[in-house]
Amino acid sequence: MTKSMESIVSLAKHRGFVFPGSDIYGGLANTWDYGPLGVELKNNVKKAWWDKFVQESQYNVGLDAAILMNPKTWIASGHVGNFNDPMIDCKSCKSRHRADKLIEDASLAKTGNEIIVDGMSFDQMKEKMAEFEVACPNCGSTDFTDIRQFNLMFKTFQGVTEDSTNEIFLRPETAQGIFVNFKNVQRSMRKRTPFGIAQIGKSFRNEITPGNFTFRTREFEQMELEFFCKPGTELEWHAYWKEFCKNWLLNLSMKEGSMRLRDHEDDELSHYSNATTDIEFQFPFGWGELWGVASRTDFDLKKHMEHSSEDFTYIDPVTNERYVPYCIEPSLGADRVTLAFLCDAYEEEELEGGDTRTVLRFHPALAPFKAAVLPLSKKLAEGANEVWADLRKAFPVDYDESQSIGKRYRRQDEIGTPFCITYDFDSAEDGMVTVRHRDTMEQERMPIADVKAYIEKSMEF
Amino acid sequence: MTKSMESIVSLAKHRGFVFPGSDIYGGLANTWDYGPLGVELKNNVKKAWWDKFVQESQYNVGLDAAILMNPKTWIASGHVGNFNDPMIDCKSCKSRHRADKLIEDASLAKTGNEIIVDGMSFDQMKEKMAEFEVACPNCGSTDFTDIRQFNLMFKTFQGVTEDSTNEIFLRPETAQGIFVNFKNVQRSMRKRTPFGIAQIGKSFRNEITPGNFTFRTREFEQMELEFFCKPGTELEWHAYWKEFCKNWLLNLSMKEGSMRLRDHEDDELSHYSNATTDIEFQFPFGWGELWGVASRTDFDLKKHMEHSSEDFTYIDPVTNERYVPYCIEPSLGADRVTLAFLCDAYEEEELEGGDTRTVLRFHPALAPFKAAVLPLSKKLAEGANEVWADLRKAFPVDYDESQSIGKRYRRQDEIGTPFCITYDFDSAEDGMVTVRHRDTMEQERMPIADVKAYIEKSMEF
Repeated sequence: MTKSMESIVSLAKHRGFVFPGSDIYGGLANTWDYGPLGVELKNNVKKAWWDKFVQESQYNVGLDAAILMNPKTWIASGHVGNFNDPMIDCKSCKSRHRADKLIEDASLAKTGNEIIVDGMSFDQMKEKMAEFEVACPNCGSTDFTDIRQFNLMFKTFQGVTEDSTNEIFLRPETAQGIFVNFKNVQRSMRKRTPFGIAQIGKSFRNEITPGNFTFRTREFEQMELEFFCKPGTELEWHAYWKEFCKNWLLNLSMKEGSMRLRDHEDDELSHYSNATTDIEFQFPFGWGELWGVASRTDFDLKKHMEHSSEDFTYIDPVTNERYVPYCIEPSLGADRVTLAFLCDAYEEEELEGGDTRTVLRFHPALAPFKAAVLPLSKKLAEGANEVWADLRKAFPVDYDESQSIGKRYRRQDEIGTPFCITYDFDSAEDGMVTVRHRDTMEQERMPIADVKAYIEKSMEF
Repeated sequence: MTKSMESIVSLAKHRGFVFPGSDIYGGLANTWDYGPLGVELKNNVKKAWWDKFVQESQYNVGLDAAILMNPKTWIASGHVGNFNDPMIDCKSCKSRHRADKLIEDASLAKTGNEIIVDGMSFDQMKEKMAEFEVACPNCGSTDFTDIRQFNLMFKTFQGVTEDSTNEIFLRPETAQGIFVNFKNVQRSMRKRTPFGIAQIGKSFRNEITPGNFTFRTREFEQMELEFFCKPGTELEWHAYWKEFCKNWLLNLSMKEGSMRLRDHEDDELSHYSNATTDIEFQFPFGWGELWGVASRTDFDLKKHMEHSSEDFTYIDPVTNERYVPYCIEPSLGADRVTLAFLCDAYEEEELEGGDTRTVLRFHPALAPFKAAVLPLSKKLAEGANEVWADLRKAFPVDYDESQSIGKRYRRQDEIGTPFCITYDFDSAEDGMVTVRHRDTMEQERMPIADVKAYIEKSMEF
């Protein structure tokens, strides 16, 4: 069966994964709230990333920089000058669009190939719009305004007067919080290259056309690593992190067939980058970027050196070599990869006898609930409750005593719970429960005392 | 010895807990970045809260709502109309102040008691300023402008035009994200009262006078629970959560003598609240609020019912009673309580022989590193590295092979690492290491194979 976004969005709302933001007030553009199961899923994704990229890493340490930064940061990084989307209005229906996206969609529809608009001038874009006969997706008109720049940073005022001296921005990426802290981190942690600084946090981009559920939202969360190494070793490290990122996804049970790695061609590379690879996922609405793994040379540190009085030169304590480190940046969207895991796990499965079930085949490390305790009868609630209380000290566990055991299994399948633990009339006496596996639907009986370790083992990745 | 904020702020910077925000650009007002150890500490605080308030709770579920919400939310909640600070300017030096804070400080200085300014009219405040002879803290002048309202919400524009129809706010509290989702959560999780919805997330308040390190910042993180119960049971539940919150702090080793619980007097209570208790902590700069535990009746849900078409009436599935639930709100500042744990743990200790050491006596659940592996000699690096690699799969572990073992112990004391694991020349042969305890400085020898479980046991709370 093919998966539709509609069925995934519907399940997400009704089972407590993702609700429309500000729902009772008719929403707010493309904002979304993570419900009780969604927040567990996303937290598990973030924890899985932190475990492998920070805690277990011999190279990397963490950071959590503020969202509000000194505006000089965004002048140095180029965001004030260059972080723009090409915006265009339909003269007929007044709807607003990104010119680059219109061209990409039109070229795909006309030729079967998506052309790369990045780097084109406005004149070149206008030519392409004419070539592909781009029409307004809203009303079909081909009468557009000129293309204009639109800066994507959200602006606000800090302090009590709304003038330009108090103008600040919501950060459009977490990366700059890492670069400005390069020396603070390196010194306080006495790190030697190669080492990395990892960060998880919210960023904000005033996208002209957000959409596709939680794939493109104005408020989003990033998981970024900036890995600093000696110039000349960066391509090795780029290959290392590309592989590391891919394996992280595979180890968390993402299907190899659902993803692809795409190396940027020379003409697609940013001028400061000597290698960039996108890891993309096949969403029901098409291929979308999850992870950009970019070799950024010393571009970022040098820009901040130019705009501040800081010297980011690193002195090797053994060889006394002096250099500004080169940087590899694997940058991952937390909301995107959470959505990817949700889409990849979703299955409508036909069972023997003609029944179907919806099942989320999450890796146990990612599943919101690791188990559900189900007493076979309400009379068994006391014993079942003891098992529940004991297990949830170790990991999140659901409890359900209403309706038939079959219905309860289906409910747990639908939210991706890997194990159902049935407490029956013998359990109090023999200290055993039945453990039912989500994916195979097979059941096995085991001592209550063994369940915790059994489930913890399944969560390793 | 008394603790000074200066020494805590200095340690925080030099050992990688907290750096000034945008440091290389001269900072940005009172913003702070959590360094490698600070992010671990704060994450541990957040995890400890989530463990007890969500995962192990039989009542509560989690949520993660967006920071950007439909502005109608803030009209309904009263933030657009009433979320103001009384602002006043010194006519002489042009510095800007909060009138209520000036009065509180002056009354404390003059009378030894802090009067409560909340609820006073501007005229009453002006009278009090005259009575206490309030002077500008900056220049000493007593010539002030009139008092004016200043709304504390950060404003920004979503979409491509900066007009009032696109004006939105950064949320000033996480609580409203919970209230607007009351029905979505209750339905999707099939919850029955009493139940709670818990959330951790950033909020923003355009404070006129931020300060005291990370105690009062414009960008901050909250951990809020909204607990919904049947009207008439709310005072029982208020007492329950007050006790629960206090015990959470005590179980994480906060000293009972460092905190106090303060019940609001009748004239201090908000008009909709029938009980509120503040849990305060004695910072080096004075007592400060950590946790507000408020019984808010049905005020919030009713306000949203008035401003939307949503009906938040709850129908008891057993008795068929219908009511809008009453709500208990324990609201905790994540940055504040992290700072409180840091201040409470900080000690400069005199040792036998006249030496002193600085030690952070964190509960092991909160300590950034749970252990440090220290090879007695660099020749032992290989074996020590194996121990390190194995342990950091379970929890964060530091590794240090430079300088004398005594200096390495001191470094670990200063960052609060509870256990130092010394790998010596016998370790490879007998499979044993020496475990040195931070607080007692006592040492014991134990099998390498036992270390992980031993440390995990110490982290329970």
